[in-house]
Amino acid sequence: MKTVLLIHAHPDPHSLTAQLAGAARAELRALGHEVIQSDLYALGWKAVYDEHDFPQRLDPQRLSFVEESGHAFKTGTQPDDVRAEQAKLQAADAVVFQFPLWWFGMPAIMKGWIERVFAYGLAYGWQDAGNRHRYGEGGLAGKRALLSVTTGGPSADYGPRGINGQLDELLFPITHGTLFYPGMEVLPTYAVHGAGRIDAAGVEAAKAGLAARMRTLFTDTPLPYRTQNGGDFPDRHVLADDVAPGVTGLRAHLR
Amino acid sequence: MKTVLLIHAHPDPHSLTAQLAGAARAELRALGHEVIQSDLYALGWKAVYDEHDFPQRLDPQRLSFVEESGHAFKTGTQPDDVRAEQAKLQAADAVVFQFPLWWFGMPAIMKGWIERVFAYGLAYGWQDAGNRHRYGEGGLAGKRALLSVTTGGPSADYGPRGINGQLDELLFPITHGTLFYPGMEVLPTYAVHGAGRIDAAGVEAAKAGLAARMRTLFTDTPLPYRTQNGGDFPDRHVLADDVAPGVTGLRAHLR
Repeated sequence: MKTVLLIHAHPDPHSLTAQLAGAARAELRALGHEVIQSDLYALGWKAVYDEHDFPQRLDPQRLSFVEESGHAFKTGTQPDDVRAEQAKLQAADAVVFQFPLWWFGMPAIMKGWIERVFAYGLAYGWQDAGNRHRYGEGGLAGKRALLSVTTGGPSADYGPRGINGQLDELLFPITHGTLFYPGMEVLPTYAVHGAGRIDAAGVEAAKAGLAARMRTLFTDTPLPYRTQNGGDFPDRHVLADDVAPGVTGLRAHLR
Repeated sequence: MKTVLLIHAHPDPHSLTAQLAGAARAELRALGHEVIQSDLYALGWKAVYDEHDFPQRLDPQRLSFVEESGHAFKTGTQPDDVRAEQAKLQAADAVVFQFPLWWFGMPAIMKGWIERVFAYGLAYGWQDAGNRHRYGEGGLAGKRALLSVTTGGPSADYGPRGINGQLDELLFPITHGTLFYPGMEVLPTYAVHGAGRIDAAGVEAAKAGLAARMRTLFTDTPLPYRTQNGGDFPDRHVLADDVAPGVTGLRAHLR
């Protein structure tokens, strides 16, 4: 039995997002896993990361989010809502993010969950080692992550030569920069396209597809991103010349 | 004389973000332009896009953001804060977004500005023509846009083979998917790296660099993204075979 944190972002309990979250939850429970949920709209999640996140400031004059985040995390002075979500995250063996793709990213409420919960000392600046532990190692190592997204447009728009851009590259700031960064193993994204015009049969197919992904959540092969300390980045910043020679851009990050 | 909307996202008036916004404002005014500002934290901007954005719902039972956004925009029933920002946007010849790169994207408060202000009928679904007008044409055509970002890491991390990913590809969901989508001409991003350890001389150099970009705001060449209706996407979804043959991923979107 594993523990799975299921986070979703849509205020309508009848939305496709909520239905998909429900399908994932039901399948995970049927598999014998424990499911923890964060229904961000229902929680009334505070999306804006601001001075109220640091009630006991290290420096009351200047607000450095990095320094105050590290201080608040280390001293246990973060707000209760942040601590509660961090406890869920730390208890989880896998995290599933279910959201509609809004302007090619997470809804602001979910982006604000990342900003507030992914504290310095937990998700970055891990073990006070600065940049030493990131990309494949870090405070969330050993956990799996899956993005499950819905989009309004047709799948062709998100293909390798689609007008919106290739979906996995659009999501790279999240999959690589947000989830792989603190050490999570990130699975290939599950996407349901054409959500605006989906019919009842389409909803059932989408739910079944996500349920299938729940069955392989702990066995699917993660995205083959390059770890910082695995040898490909000898100076921890730039790919070695002999690794994927001549390749540039996001695709250079795939082993 | 032009009108420039300057949006920034950091709560500390002494932050590098606020200082850069101040430098941009001063230079634009010195050039004789009118500057409109949206200091999102000072405004107490509501970041979460939810049912309160649609006080007179088309469908009180089911919440479709696309349908309610179109209805609220068309009937003039959007909240006052949204209408005020749309009026600023519509008055602007150029928009400058100044923000710290948090998890490789906009802070949630700014993402929520996009979600709430970029209504259906204005920034997408323009002229009720569905997907017909997007990418180079749309409700914001004729306006210029510039991202001005600060990052914590060194510039090498954001280079073509840097460990974080190439900066222009990390920002593609914003530059292409959010700003070019409704027709804006998007300029190459202005980036200040190593913001966490910047010294006084570095701050002055960063401000001077941004001031220089303000002087060429209306003459710099925009990013060469492909328009939907310019011939490269004959079916409006996928690149024609003879356009950049064999090229896939985000780089296929550059002319």
